[in-house]
Amino acid sequence: MDNFNFYSPTEFVFGKDRENECGNYVKKYDGKKVLIHYGGGSVIRSGLLDRVKNSLDSCGIEYVELGGVKPNPRDTKIYEGIELCRKENVDFILSVGGGSCIDSAKGIAIGALYDGDFWDFYGTGKNVEKALPIGTVLTIAAAGSEGSGASVVTKEDGMLKRDVGSDLLRPRFSILNPALTCTLPAYQTACGTTDIMAHVFERYFTNTNEVEITDRLCEAVLLTMIKETPRVLENPDNYEARANIMWAGTVAHNDIVGVGRSQDWNSHGIEHELSGLYDCAHGAGLAVIMPAWMEYVMNHNIMRFAQMAVRIWGIPMNFENPEYTAKAGITAFRRFLHDIGMPINFEELGAKEEDIPMLVKNLGIGSGKRSGFVELDANDVTEIYKIAAHAQI
Amino acid sequence: MDNFNFYSPTEFVFGKDRENECGNYVKKYDGKKVLIHYGGGSVIRSGLLDRVKNSLDSCGIEYVELGGVKPNPRDTKIYEGIELCRKENVDFILSVGGGSCIDSAKGIAIGALYDGDFWDFYGTGKNVEKALPIGTVLTIAAAGSEGSGASVVTKEDGMLKRDVGSDLLRPRFSILNPALTCTLPAYQTACGTTDIMAHVFERYFTNTNEVEITDRLCEAVLLTMIKETPRVLENPDNYEARANIMWAGTVAHNDIVGVGRSQDWNSHGIEHELSGLYDCAHGAGLAVIMPAWMEYVMNHNIMRFAQMAVRIWGIPMNFENPEYTAKAGITAFRRFLHDIGMPINFEELGAKEEDIPMLVKNLGIGSGKRSGFVELDANDVTEIYKIAAHAQI
Repeated sequence: MDNFNFYSPTEFVFGKDRENECGNYVKKYDGKKVLIHYGGGSVIRSGLLDRVKNSLDSCGIEYVELGGVKPNPRDTKIYEGIELCRKENVDFILSVGGGSCIDSAKGIAIGALYDGDFWDFYGTGKNVEKALPIGTVLTIAAAGSEGSGASVVTKEDGMLKRDVGSDLLRPRFSILNPALTCTLPAYQTACGTTDIMAHVFERYFTNTNEVEITDRLCEAVLLTMIKETPRVLENPDNYEARANIMWAGTVAHNDIVGVGRSQDWNSHGIEHELSGLYDCAHGAGLAVIMPAWMEYVMNHNIMRFAQMAVRIWGIPMNFENPEYTAKAGITAFRRFLHDIGMPINFEELGAKEEDIPMLVKNLGIGSGKRSGFVELDANDVTEIYKIAAHAQI
Repeated sequence: MDNFNFYSPTEFVFGKDRENECGNYVKKYDGKKVLIHYGGGSVIRSGLLDRVKNSLDSCGIEYVELGGVKPNPRDTKIYEGIELCRKENVDFILSVGGGSCIDSAKGIAIGALYDGDFWDFYGTGKNVEKALPIGTVLTIAAAGSEGSGASVVTKEDGMLKRDVGSDLLRPRFSILNPALTCTLPAYQTACGTTDIMAHVFERYFTNTNEVEITDRLCEAVLLTMIKETPRVLENPDNYEARANIMWAGTVAHNDIVGVGRSQDWNSHGIEHELSGLYDCAHGAGLAVIMPAWMEYVMNHNIMRFAQMAVRIWGIPMNFENPEYTAKAGITAFRRFLHDIGMPINFEELGAKEEDIPMLVKNLGIGSGKRSGFVELDANDVTEIYKIAAHAQI
């Protein structure tokens, strides 16, 4: 097992009606002047924004608002938020929405206290030294940003998607009410499931041997998603299934399932170019990319893919031909994604094979390699995009 | 799923040689004058205490020392520590040892800032309002106290074992170097495994249905312990196996495997009277009590015990007679405990059947009931002690 630090100080406040306590938690974490940050009209129509404001009002907390965050959140909205925070002396940001909204809030949190362009930190590895504290009221189980120190933002000029990570970006508290996710359309629910499972698989495929505890924790999340996702697609109001998915989504990405081992993250990187270029849902892009990546790298460690097949998909081990088992596991994953309504190839996603050279170029590998479970050069990534373009079940 | 808060703000610092960084972490968490708290001579003989002091010295941190913590830590040592902290203006306690040492440090942390008897908080539910910050350098994987807000202490007058819990008692940081556990004798290693598995089972047997994510996380820890424990007993120096066990021990008790559901904890309560009276190892007492408790309450939810048997012990489901499967799971657990060298009945533990009335009396149920997976009155507890007294494989 590799040496590691695990630090997840966020207070998770989980369950029915918990959003009505958000004022208390802002107060507990010393917020006095809040920026409420949100996306589209659904948080207004559902009455959620009013409940949040009532809770802040009842705790005597002042606030200003900034809505309009888009999926694949843009730098332009973040600049707007930074200006507003400075003008209004905001000292706490409360994100009310899904992962895009939280990631946008994190960008604002960095920029408000930085004497320069917040974009300096994205995709560069530059160390975040200060950030405003953040709280979240989560409305979509997917990104895991409510429990992570990561933020992914798209620069509108060139549609480049880049990320940053810092413990300073971990929310002070995150309120997770599964009932808020019951109104999500089936497609978005399935995109969330795919993103959650991808967060686990990016950690599951490792070159560090004998990390049984982390393997088993990964499998715990995946098995839960495989059980619960069909239940919410059958009945969107199934609170218990929504609750399991929502908490699994947080556990999948606060790194408890990833410590002590090398991780991959190439599927995420390769996907980001798709959602950057076509503005498709990140989860949908992952459904197309991740099984293709698996097929391409499978031979690097057949037994690890066989383990996935047996433990996660319940496929009997073929002891004479483990690679049959390994392959069957990947097929089971793709079939599952198809069954929950995800696209599995470029056509279904709305991507074009002729764009592959541009996608590879945008990824910025040049003549180098991306590190991970298997090192990938531009040629490897091209092959993965090609497999993804033509995949069938 | 029940509403819950999950809050585990401890920074875990895991891996080889990490104890040499303890000065940096004390500094990071604002410690200026430290009480180093430890148990017997092994931390001195192994050179660990010197490495800790060197690290504090190199960071310019002052310290005083208090050794001599016993297993099943006593109130008398805590009074000593409180006096020392007050006299020396200690502002940070660094525990160097196992769970007993950490629990003792937590008692001191409460008492040093409380204008009264620290024992007021134990077994009473009285709310802890202030406590000195704590850090730990862990030497035994077992109690989980390095990541929990709990402390269990024995009052020497009457040998009563009582507990307290508060988020204020969660360590600021915990340093976990698995190599430090390689010198543990087989018996203590096995006691640790039993304690870790018991922490999970106390959460696994719940009356809250459909909490798949927490079930699966519980199973992840248990499956890891079942795989790794025989490996360290075969080769005590197996770092990878020690590492898996050490991290599993922390995950088992910071409540990530227990959220969203009712928990039990009756086996722990019933055991505490054994280790209180006979001063035996807590893990050894649990090996005797927990399977007996399982047999006594099994009929309350046969399918949950069948799930344990199938998912954890790999027993094929008997669809015609699920209770056969359930029973086989309990037998497998007891056999595992026996195989790793644990006692499984009173004689092997050194307890006496004729003491059962006293054990029941000390538990203090009176004419009431203990809540849990199954409510237990004095008669029920008597029956459980009797099953434990005579258990065989």
